[in-house]
Amino acid sequence: MTQASRTMLADMKRLFIASRGNPEHLAQLFRAELPDFDVLTEQPKDGDADVPYIVVGRPLPGVVRAVPGLKLVLSLNAGIEHLLASGEVPEELPIVRLVDDGLALGMAEWVLAQALAWHRNLFLYAELQSKGEWAPQPEKLANERKVTVLGAGALGRPVAEHFVRLGFGTHVWARSRHSIPGASTFSGTDQLPEAARGADILVNLLPLTAETADLIDADLLAVLADGAFFINAARGGHVVDADLIAALDSGKLSGAALDVFRTEPLPIEDPLWQHPRVRLSPHVAAPTHQHMAVKEMAANIRRFEQGEPVRNVVDRSLGY
Amino acid sequence: MTQASRTMLADMKRLFIASRGNPEHLAQLFRAELPDFDVLTEQPKDGDADVPYIVVGRPLPGVVRAVPGLKLVLSLNAGIEHLLASGEVPEELPIVRLVDDGLALGMAEWVLAQALAWHRNLFLYAELQSKGEWAPQPEKLANERKVTVLGAGALGRPVAEHFVRLGFGTHVWARSRHSIPGASTFSGTDQLPEAARGADILVNLLPLTAETADLIDADLLAVLADGAFFINAARGGHVVDADLIAALDSGKLSGAALDVFRTEPLPIEDPLWQHPRVRLSPHVAAPTHQHMAVKEMAANIRRFEQGEPVRNVVDRSLGY
Repeated sequence: MTQASRTMLADMKRLFIASRGNPEHLAQLFRAELPDFDVLTEQPKDGDADVPYIVVGRPLPGVVRAVPGLKLVLSLNAGIEHLLASGEVPEELPIVRLVDDGLALGMAEWVLAQALAWHRNLFLYAELQSKGEWAPQPEKLANERKVTVLGAGALGRPVAEHFVRLGFGTHVWARSRHSIPGASTFSGTDQLPEAARGADILVNLLPLTAETADLIDADLLAVLADGAFFINAARGGHVVDADLIAALDSGKLSGAALDVFRTEPLPIEDPLWQHPRVRLSPHVAAPTHQHMAVKEMAANIRRFEQGEPVRNVVDRSLGY
Repeated sequence: MTQASRTMLADMKRLFIASRGNPEHLAQLFRAELPDFDVLTEQPKDGDADVPYIVVGRPLPGVVRAVPGLKLVLSLNAGIEHLLASGEVPEELPIVRLVDDGLALGMAEWVLAQALAWHRNLFLYAELQSKGEWAPQPEKLANERKVTVLGAGALGRPVAEHFVRLGFGTHVWARSRHSIPGASTFSGTDQLPEAARGADILVNLLPLTAETADLIDADLLAVLADGAFFINAARGGHVVDADLIAALDSGKLSGAALDVFRTEPLPIEDPLWQHPRVRLSPHVAAPTHQHMAVKEMAANIRRFEQGEPVRNVVDRSLGY
């Protein structure tokens, strides 16, 4: 390395990727987006040159605090409750949660796939096929079904918009007031039962906070239509599992598509694995699409560099 | 009955419902839409007052020709190849095929349900669940997939529009030229291979005519992407079953969702019942929604009465 390039490198802005997965792959993507940055994959130490940016999922203890001159924490996840709970990020540091377009797109596809598969009896026909039974079922149109979406943010809103376009009667509930063309909207704890009453499909896309933990319980499930379908693509902590299983056992729910669990991977002894009315998947509803995620994070770093407002900064008082 | 009401009834326009299913239910729906019509469910005979309208699915021999003064034949089905093949409808009588909004809506829902279920591996995860395996698969976004829709009419067009909106790369092929915003369009036999080349999902929504019978054969399947998925919601006669099964056996196709067959109900000895890569359903993709179908037929009768152009008249030279 020449003296000139050594000086240049020292002058470069620095970004540390603390991913425990495959930091080199992520680093390559960041280098393509931010060619004027020095992208590190090894822990910078006190005394090193300042590293204003860190990209991190679930940090190992001490990793974040050891970075000198840190100014912005970029989460690799949309849900940041683990990062907040870790206590690893000093109070004064802003955290940006991941809201990449790929995440929202993937989530919408997965929720629609589950909702439509239930709506048009795909798994029921597969079962009838296995028995050699040619048995048309009564079929309804989307405009004869009601869907309630919990969450009206970067994930809930596009999902609700798809349901509206497909003709489903669409209710959307969120903590705060919002508006979605073609949907009936509800906000605040007191409007939750009204939002969910009579729903054929309940979709959970809420952030996990102190307010939303255990929100999906026997009381909420009781107001749904008989034989309703529940789709959870948010967090396992939203659901009181015993209440969910009771509703499935009683037939109040005809089924549930669960992508998230309190413990992941879901322990093999968990009764959800074997429940005949549960379809579970291994947290794949909205996989992070690294190209799109890196583009979004790089754009946010550019905004920060230029003194512009950074997008999707976490409000720690709200928890998301 | 008074003389006055007898005269009124004799003056009323008459409509005969020749459905072999439940003509009384249909008749009630028609009476609500056309209160000034005398709606018959029993065969009118030569010598009776004229009956200008007949509503019919697959006519029993002689039924249509026996109706005096018939002017318009309204098919209870979207596909009218059985009606044409029966030879029961005199050449000079116009036939209207059923294009009710419910049909198109139901079809779009079903095709999307099948396409998204495959795209997001729903049946694969169900299989992994049955083995107790927590095994995330590589997930793609819709914008990394290519769909080819065969058919650009009342059924193909809305399906293609949904695929465009969901972000799928969308190709549409039909006999004649057409245009669908956001989709690449192809027409004529010579452009068929180009339309289907590299498609991850092939959707058949064509009318069954002499030109489209057996269209889906080894040659067409060979140009798809390896591991593609085939969705047939049109007619069994479009597909060379032996070629389809060979493509499934070789893995060229990873699966097929079939709602229609050359013989329905599908005979229990047919190998499609048991094929591990086939999901079959009993012709339920686009069930006729009677309320919406009757509204559409009644509106067409009103147009005919007022000398306005009737919608969806069959072109017998094209076969649809």
